[in-house]
Amino acid sequence: MTGIFLHRPLPAARVPQWDFDTDVAILGFGATGACAAIEATMAGTRAMVFERNSGSGGASALSGGEIYIGGSGGTDAQRAAGFEDRTEDLATYLKMAGGPCVDEAKCDLYAQKALGHYAWLKAQGIPYRGNYLPGKHIEPVDDSTLIWSGSEAAAPFCDAARPAPRGHVIQHGGWGGGRPLIDILEARARDLGVQIHCDARGLALIEDEGAIVGLVVRIDNQDRFVRAHQGVVLATGGFAMNAAMRAKYCPETLRLNSPIGDKDDGIGILLGMGAGGEAIHMEQFFSTCPWTMPESHAYGVFVNTLGQRFINEDCYHGRVSRAALDQPGDRVFLLLDNAHFGQPLEMAGITIAGTGETWEEVEAELEMPAGTLSATMAFYNSHASQGRDPLFDKRKPILTPLDQGPFIALELNFTTSYFSFFTLGGLNTSLQGEVLDRDGTPIPGLFAAGRCTSGLPAWGHGYSSGLSLADCTFFGRQAGHSAGVRAGRMHVGEVA
Amino acid sequence: MTGIFLHRPLPAARVPQWDFDTDVAILGFGATGACAAIEATMAGTRAMVFERNSGSGGASALSGGEIYIGGSGGTDAQRAAGFEDRTEDLATYLKMAGGPCVDEAKCDLYAQKALGHYAWLKAQGIPYRGNYLPGKHIEPVDDSTLIWSGSEAAAPFCDAARPAPRGHVIQHGGWGGGRPLIDILEARARDLGVQIHCDARGLALIEDEGAIVGLVVRIDNQDRFVRAHQGVVLATGGFAMNAAMRAKYCPETLRLNSPIGDKDDGIGILLGMGAGGEAIHMEQFFSTCPWTMPESHAYGVFVNTLGQRFINEDCYHGRVSRAALDQPGDRVFLLLDNAHFGQPLEMAGITIAGTGETWEEVEAELEMPAGTLSATMAFYNSHASQGRDPLFDKRKPILTPLDQGPFIALELNFTTSYFSFFTLGGLNTSLQGEVLDRDGTPIPGLFAAGRCTSGLPAWGHGYSSGLSLADCTFFGRQAGHSAGVRAGRMHVGEVA
Repeated sequence: MTGIFLHRPLPAARVPQWDFDTDVAILGFGATGACAAIEATMAGTRAMVFERNSGSGGASALSGGEIYIGGSGGTDAQRAAGFEDRTEDLATYLKMAGGPCVDEAKCDLYAQKALGHYAWLKAQGIPYRGNYLPGKHIEPVDDSTLIWSGSEAAAPFCDAARPAPRGHVIQHGGWGGGRPLIDILEARARDLGVQIHCDARGLALIEDEGAIVGLVVRIDNQDRFVRAHQGVVLATGGFAMNAAMRAKYCPETLRLNSPIGDKDDGIGILLGMGAGGEAIHMEQFFSTCPWTMPESHAYGVFVNTLGQRFINEDCYHGRVSRAALDQPGDRVFLLLDNAHFGQPLEMAGITIAGTGETWEEVEAELEMPAGTLSATMAFYNSHASQGRDPLFDKRKPILTPLDQGPFIALELNFTTSYFSFFTLGGLNTSLQGEVLDRDGTPIPGLFAAGRCTSGLPAWGHGYSSGLSLADCTFFGRQAGHSAGVRAGRMHVGEVA
Repeated sequence: MTGIFLHRPLPAARVPQWDFDTDVAILGFGATGACAAIEATMAGTRAMVFERNSGSGGASALSGGEIYIGGSGGTDAQRAAGFEDRTEDLATYLKMAGGPCVDEAKCDLYAQKALGHYAWLKAQGIPYRGNYLPGKHIEPVDDSTLIWSGSEAAAPFCDAARPAPRGHVIQHGGWGGGRPLIDILEARARDLGVQIHCDARGLALIEDEGAIVGLVVRIDNQDRFVRAHQGVVLATGGFAMNAAMRAKYCPETLRLNSPIGDKDDGIGILLGMGAGGEAIHMEQFFSTCPWTMPESHAYGVFVNTLGQRFINEDCYHGRVSRAALDQPGDRVFLLLDNAHFGQPLEMAGITIAGTGETWEEVEAELEMPAGTLSATMAFYNSHASQGRDPLFDKRKPILTPLDQGPFIALELNFTTSYFSFFTLGGLNTSLQGEVLDRDGTPIPGLFAAGRCTSGLPAWGHGYSSGLSLADCTFFGRQAGHSAGVRAGRMHVGEVA
């Protein structure tokens, strides 16, 4: 590597020997890498996966295993529950959720293909019970399939696109469906003959005549050289664990201390940039706090430290949490009455900040000026009792007066409560999963998907549960397929 | 140029002939380029400037010519007005103003050197009358020198650092001091023998053995090759005029339609990135609306479309304007009473949205729910009459009740009012103006300063007038000096 281009690909002419030979090399073995490997193999080529950890999973295994699916009339689970989900409604919602960072073409493609993607996931062996679990959940409390997982039914989304629940969760019973999801994808990849190398850390790409033709990995403390005749797929996740990258690209996350990930160090983004790829929307991140556990807390009202409301609390818990981080100060308060309070989830780090027989007493206990929080709640209650929220358009049934004392204010502190996060910015890719340079031209032989790219969940304020795994699995497949059908560069054999 | 690296430097071996020969080549002839050229020449080397436009100026010439200066006991103007500005206060303020994006080392260096920089500016021939103009101004109404140009005297800044006015404006009489400032710097550069080529558009850098050794420029529709023995200084400004870059890196600006600049297309950032440089904080932008003209409007109160206040209105008008853009909806309202209303500056695009004999009438005219804006103003007035603003800590004398009807609400619409903006993100540079790669290592022969870098004004919410020109002129000097004293790579002569 020349001194001047950090993370610039190693010229193939400098490769001392090829230690591995494959058609498609995939860096990272979370959901993205697994799906890419399966598709590359199904395209008739050899695929090899290199994973830094000692096993598969990545951040995907830490998730609930929920995938955002709908459109085309609805999945079996949606139709059985009476939701005829239209493709245009899904596309419209995805575009609103993508906000100013949206890639409309990706939204349109996914909306058109999501049902087929669901069938593909089932064909890989992922089980779905097929039923609908009503209510407001972060993850299903049992082995149910379908839940509301975004802000579809809340303003302003519900006025622009007919809402439907779209979170589809693997049948396994209880929390943490990400691990079994990955296990099934891994088993499928192994069945198809994908070669898997764990404890193999990606160091550099290898280029030859303007195309990516391989990968340098570190195994047993030695550099090993992987020849990938048809290209490399980057599937290494985001940069939530890389403090230097966060400081330079996404400094708002520095006050949060619960990154979702383990070794999400952004290496794929750095390698892609070094090869001429463009990283976009790097400042975007998803963040959420599990304040809707117990579920009755969803009926609460959020105020900032000035006693002002800031969002319709009936939207997705992550959207509320993300908006909370934009408020002045270092905390927000969740206000509840006796009818809706329950002990918050202990691991959430949510504490009781104040109580009172009246909202005036709560206000005083929080040391807010008289006439702030109490006025907010008087205004809220008087309108909620008429079924209206003129400020934020919160809707029934979650819109309900909080007037049955005693009252309580829970504190969600940005630093000490459990505000988990992961990054959303990354490499700019085509619909086919090709890494694009700043001119929008694909870099031959280089593909990427998942959180090392900017994909469907591009905008922190518009995240919905299952959107990242939808992006990882669907565009992981796209990238693997594109690499799998690409004509190999057979002349690369003649290097020193 | 190879196909795979867009904007990657041209290898020197491919240069057909050298059309120009210099020690330091500077791309861009705004304040940054002018100061870099002067310093490079004063270091005893030859400097050549290439400017895309037909004359000097860039975005600097569109400014008020105000430079943020202080510390070290204060400038002549500060001391004459009774402000003994301490270096630590300046440094503290700069760091707060830099927010989460701050480069503390740059703040410290500038705070230490600002007084010397002021002397340098005077030595170049820039005249300062030396007096202080009290009040709240965007630019001086006459040929005065010193004005308040930031949020120093407002919370939370004033509690952390002793405030002082630090905006120093060239003596010229009235608005638009940027043009005469540039004219003086240009004349000085010409006196020193700097060669200036206008209508010369930068196309590419030239590299040889890992160092930048020249520049390709387009002149008279032909590629011309500039040999720069000691390096190249990028001084091309930001990317406010590049819609594609804004969409990918700073999409929040897409709803604003008044970029400050002419050809600020981000080319320097792209060339620097192509050479391995790192661009950081690309999502940051400065935006302001001239709502404090007339000055009495500074006494007004801002509310969002929900009738909520969102900031202490006594801070810098740009900080208020920037915070306004974070509010829900597409507009905010400036509330004034009869004692403070004046016709807003016509070019500002600020319109009258509602009037009334009471705040309740204004509220109704704005079609806000009863008890929103009127409650906000009742709360504000009752505390302001006691000299307090418990919500945002606005301070006297600007804190005053707005209780002398009739009342008025002016509308600042993000799209149709004059919200001007420019971008703040760019190349990461050392204190010496070297462009750094992602590892923090300088790229040999490549320097940059001003708005194609992330510098002193790194954070949109912490901008102060004069901070960008301070950064451009001071770090432009640093970059020019560093290039000027760098050992030349004389062996570059032997190219094809």
